[in-house]
Amino acid sequence: MMNSKSKKTILLDHGSGGIASQELIANIFLKHLDNSILAALEDSAVMDNHPGKLAFSTDSYVVDPIFFPGGDIGTLAVHGTINDLAMRGARPLCLSLGLILEEGLDLDDLERIIASIAKCSKSAGVPIVTGDTKVVPKDKCDKIFINTSGIGIVAEGVEISSTMAKEGDMILLSGSMGDHGITIMTRRAGLTLDGNLASDSAALHELVALLLEKLSPGTLHALRDPTRGGVATSLNEIAAAAVGLAVEIDDLAIPVKTEVRAACEIMGLDPLYLANEGKCLALVAPEQAAEALRLMQSTSVGRNAAIIGSLKAGKAGQVILRTSIGGSRIITPLHGEPLPRIC
Amino acid sequence: MMNSKSKKTILLDHGSGGIASQELIANIFLKHLDNSILAALEDSAVMDNHPGKLAFSTDSYVVDPIFFPGGDIGTLAVHGTINDLAMRGARPLCLSLGLILEEGLDLDDLERIIASIAKCSKSAGVPIVTGDTKVVPKDKCDKIFINTSGIGIVAEGVEISSTMAKEGDMILLSGSMGDHGITIMTRRAGLTLDGNLASDSAALHELVALLLEKLSPGTLHALRDPTRGGVATSLNEIAAAAVGLAVEIDDLAIPVKTEVRAACEIMGLDPLYLANEGKCLALVAPEQAAEALRLMQSTSVGRNAAIIGSLKAGKAGQVILRTSIGGSRIITPLHGEPLPRIC
Repeated sequence: MMNSKSKKTILLDHGSGGIASQELIANIFLKHLDNSILAALEDSAVMDNHPGKLAFSTDSYVVDPIFFPGGDIGTLAVHGTINDLAMRGARPLCLSLGLILEEGLDLDDLERIIASIAKCSKSAGVPIVTGDTKVVPKDKCDKIFINTSGIGIVAEGVEISSTMAKEGDMILLSGSMGDHGITIMTRRAGLTLDGNLASDSAALHELVALLLEKLSPGTLHALRDPTRGGVATSLNEIAAAAVGLAVEIDDLAIPVKTEVRAACEIMGLDPLYLANEGKCLALVAPEQAAEALRLMQSTSVGRNAAIIGSLKAGKAGQVILRTSIGGSRIITPLHGEPLPRIC
Repeated sequence: MMNSKSKKTILLDHGSGGIASQELIANIFLKHLDNSILAALEDSAVMDNHPGKLAFSTDSYVVDPIFFPGGDIGTLAVHGTINDLAMRGARPLCLSLGLILEEGLDLDDLERIIASIAKCSKSAGVPIVTGDTKVVPKDKCDKIFINTSGIGIVAEGVEISSTMAKEGDMILLSGSMGDHGITIMTRRAGLTLDGNLASDSAALHELVALLLEKLSPGTLHALRDPTRGGVATSLNEIAAAAVGLAVEIDDLAIPVKTEVRAACEIMGLDPLYLANEGKCLALVAPEQAAEALRLMQSTSVGRNAAIIGSLKAGKAGQVILRTSIGGSRIITPLHGEPLPRIC
């Protein structure tokens, strides 16, 4: 119906704002993402407000390949922005969806991605309420780029920020690290490895809500999701924001799956720098750290959570890794770009 | 500092999330866009809420060329999303900024665009509070794509929507049409024409706020900004949403600049279908239409406003143009894509 070739593809016309755009919206977007706010197709969505502060986040997704074990560019786009909101203690309210499509993109691939976005959005309880689609000529982008932005509500009294970190805070990691990064990397290198490498793409807002509900008020100080740049870079951001303090982590305590470690050894990579898409670091007052760990482990996304270190006085701004042989080394933020288009 | 060639360009490393990303943020983004919420560099911005409903909008900008008379991709990105919020009667509160950069992009061009974004954002009083930057390898995008999303607050009692349109409503256009579309088009065709063709890129939220403040409550029914697809397509959207009603417009009443009309004649184009980036259509109850026109004309962005038609009972869903020779023709939404990457 949209063009005469047997394999239907995106045409420039689909980005015109005219009749072909309307067909695309009706036949693919509203088919999967239908909700009354989006379906109004106005210039912006209007919805009820809620008491509390506003959280606002944006992320663009350019991952290559667009489909991979454990997810696709659509799951990343939904989970990533939900997680960015959750990292400030916000309850995610809604998402926007901005698509940039390459002329010639397979319409079946587009529909598969939109269906995936719809599934993640419904499962997370965070609707897509507004959107935009642009089409650029062939070779002016690569298949599909997605931007999601999100609004969340931060309840009164909740203040989660790396600047709230305090000496003695325990550092929790909600699960094994490097799963997403190594999955994309081996996939792109064409490597076939034993085990079941898969992206950890997942939404963390329910885990965060559980921590906020159950921990003593004011004991959850900071959250970060270690995406690009990995755990090493996020810990450096925490150390930079936690004035006068150093991060100390224990190599043996950090959960890494056997197959991820093996793939890292083959490829000469350090899992500390690999991207994650469904993990968070949490800084918790020491008296509530064990309870925070128990709560994380009670969730499906946090079942492999671990306490990996603490915030100490000392070399302010540094991240120090205690190694299994009793030594220590300084962990710097990511230098260089080991893998463009990881997310 | 960022690379050793004499002309500094974007490297893949600038999108890594690591040290080069931090340098880009500090040396270009925070230099121009500095505000305390953005400068916190957390996973999401957290800010004060306001009473009223929430408006939320998103748009990606892929315009080619990225610099043109009257603006650049940055001015479009700020004005476009502010306008989408304003079209629901919202007061824009803040914007997000998502950048997708091509490896090799001239850093001076990037800085020029960021400076332009900063200038428009400050002038409009709508800060950029959160952002994200991705870099893709050369030839995987075209220089720079920008997504802006925005949050606005709709005051209690304000309900602006095409579904609120009523029989007898007068249709105002806030100024001349086609300026942006024809500017990009002649630029890309390499045509040099007499006159001063320039994009109309401008923010409309202050004009909308003035109408909401001064008109009798409930008499401003609907607003649309005729971007892609032009006035013709926006009027068709209004006619489709205004149940049971037809749009009737008067050819002679629609403001078109002489140089735009001349360029359209040379290129065989109809200005009704050309994109605008600083114009709106307003549907106003007839008893307040003259006052709405006076208010529009009192602003710099609306000084050439005109009443161009009205909503009538009759051929529901149709847009009818009364021509200068006494005839009439049906105006359909845009078919085909006369100009990809217009915005």
